[in-house]
Amino acid sequence: MKELGFKMEQRYMGIDIGGTTTKFGVFTKEGRLLDKWSVPTDISENGKHIIPKIYREIKVFTESKGRISGAGLGIPGPVTQEGFVENCVNLGWRDVNPERELAGLLGDVLVAGGNDANVAALGEAWKGAGAGCENIFMVTLGTGVGGGAVVNGEIVNGMQGLSGEIGHIPVNEKETEKCNCGNCGCLDQIASATGIVRYTRRLLRESSRESCLEDRDGLTAAEITAAAASGDAIGTEGLAYSMTCLGKSLAIVSHIIDPEMFIIGGGVSAAGEMLIPMIQEGYDRHIYLKKSHAAIRLAKLGGDAGIYGAARLAMQKGENL
Amino acid sequence: MKELGFKMEQRYMGIDIGGTTTKFGVFTKEGRLLDKWSVPTDISENGKHIIPKIYREIKVFTESKGRISGAGLGIPGPVTQEGFVENCVNLGWRDVNPERELAGLLGDVLVAGGNDANVAALGEAWKGAGAGCENIFMVTLGTGVGGGAVVNGEIVNGMQGLSGEIGHIPVNEKETEKCNCGNCGCLDQIASATGIVRYTRRLLRESSRESCLEDRDGLTAAEITAAAASGDAIGTEGLAYSMTCLGKSLAIVSHIIDPEMFIIGGGVSAAGEMLIPMIQEGYDRHIYLKKSHAAIRLAKLGGDAGIYGAARLAMQKGENL
Repeated sequence: MKELGFKMEQRYMGIDIGGTTTKFGVFTKEGRLLDKWSVPTDISENGKHIIPKIYREIKVFTESKGRISGAGLGIPGPVTQEGFVENCVNLGWRDVNPERELAGLLGDVLVAGGNDANVAALGEAWKGAGAGCENIFMVTLGTGVGGGAVVNGEIVNGMQGLSGEIGHIPVNEKETEKCNCGNCGCLDQIASATGIVRYTRRLLRESSRESCLEDRDGLTAAEITAAAASGDAIGTEGLAYSMTCLGKSLAIVSHIIDPEMFIIGGGVSAAGEMLIPMIQEGYDRHIYLKKSHAAIRLAKLGGDAGIYGAARLAMQKGENL
Repeated sequence: MKELGFKMEQRYMGIDIGGTTTKFGVFTKEGRLLDKWSVPTDISENGKHIIPKIYREIKVFTESKGRISGAGLGIPGPVTQEGFVENCVNLGWRDVNPERELAGLLGDVLVAGGNDANVAALGEAWKGAGAGCENIFMVTLGTGVGGGAVVNGEIVNGMQGLSGEIGHIPVNEKETEKCNCGNCGCLDQIASATGIVRYTRRLLRESSRESCLEDRDGLTAAEITAAAASGDAIGTEGLAYSMTCLGKSLAIVSHIIDPEMFIIGGGVSAAGEMLIPMIQEGYDRHIYLKKSHAAIRLAKLGGDAGIYGAARLAMQKGENL
């Protein structure tokens, strides 16, 4: 084949597999998003159709728009360093290696896989709030509390995919209700959307103060953060308690990996900048170096963090070969 | 210059700077210790003689035994990624860059510097208890509790040298005495040699049970671990409390970086294997993945971990250039 005088621009695909939707994004090596789309995730028959469907999506793309150099997968469960998934409840996967399966189908395209929270952290470190930082920790405040660490520009995967699982750090020794992990007083019980609702409902039951909120089933974290934003005392107290506990946990993270920046993402982060001083207060109270300069910032990429991070993961795998 | 048909074996020097003694070790690239010695550390005049003295030791060595390819420094305080030391109380250093100073004196020899606990962790990961592991966390139980993390084979330095400072993780919300950092209930107050003595003396005051130990000034952690080894109830209870709290902290570390192995070093670790089940109990109680396989092992290199790790650090800096 004739060598051309130029090199075609390399492109990487990031694929974020969720229990309902699988998102695709195509990026240049510099991180420019060229194209994105999503398809429903078919989790029937223990998720056996997921990877073949992803393969077909890639094929359709490359046949019309040309070659990609790598594809990265964000997976909603623990992934070993070798890409092995022992148990991924949301997709029905057990004892599979989706990275290897997709690589087998694609042949000459490099494939990398990682846990979705870790991959989102890599995305934010690459092109989001942490752009320019080599060491960040991202927390995702959704139904649960998840997280991911990036050290020296790369995901900290950990031995069994437990890294970044900040939700199960103990932060309240006095808690008597059990977390779904079996322990009591995990951060997940306090700072997740569910945790904010649980704690605020407790305040509503125990307090005689006026509030626009009611102790009822179906109360949401969004209603509580809206109440806090409008100055409601109980909404503010509930949210502030949850966020100072989160800050305490971030101080713990600093004592272990000392990142440059903490990035707060997930549904709860839609409450915006008012969360930051609440988190900062808990952080400052528990940090050893009182003049610690770690920044606490809101995530920037929203639901796209996963596709950015997955594409970056594939790119890094290529660089390390 | 004539190219010879063989390459001379590369050698690296590891230098562990302590407040009293500076240790030197010379290693092959494979980690064979060729030579070691130590000299007193002269901390007079804000430690200004320390680096020139190290330079002279290196000169004496290289003039009689030939060239070294790199020198690594273990420093007893926080070191930034660029080698900068803002404040090192034990050596009297303020706002210095010992790595750059030594490199300036040596000219053509590569120099790297890091915090001593982090460097010791790298040494144990390279040729000690963690040999063969890319991801470990080492805890040093001495007068205080220190620690260091190695991820993907490299030290996690952190932004301001706070990484690995597990001693200031909060583990006991009920503690009312203040830690030297100003907070209450830090691991340092419980699992350090000082902490073990403090807690056991409290038990001795409050318990009517018989013990070979007495609540007195000058009681040492070594006396307590010896009493525990001989079956003394209060010695055992004091030590077990400290070690289960340590185990809880290690579970927290697993939720953030999920290492393959925890390595227990420092003076208290001389108590030996009896510590492991105590630590394991606290770990198992607080870990999310109940079948977590992270190993907990005693350190192997003793006081030599620092020279091993410092030599390895210089070697890695060369590889990354």
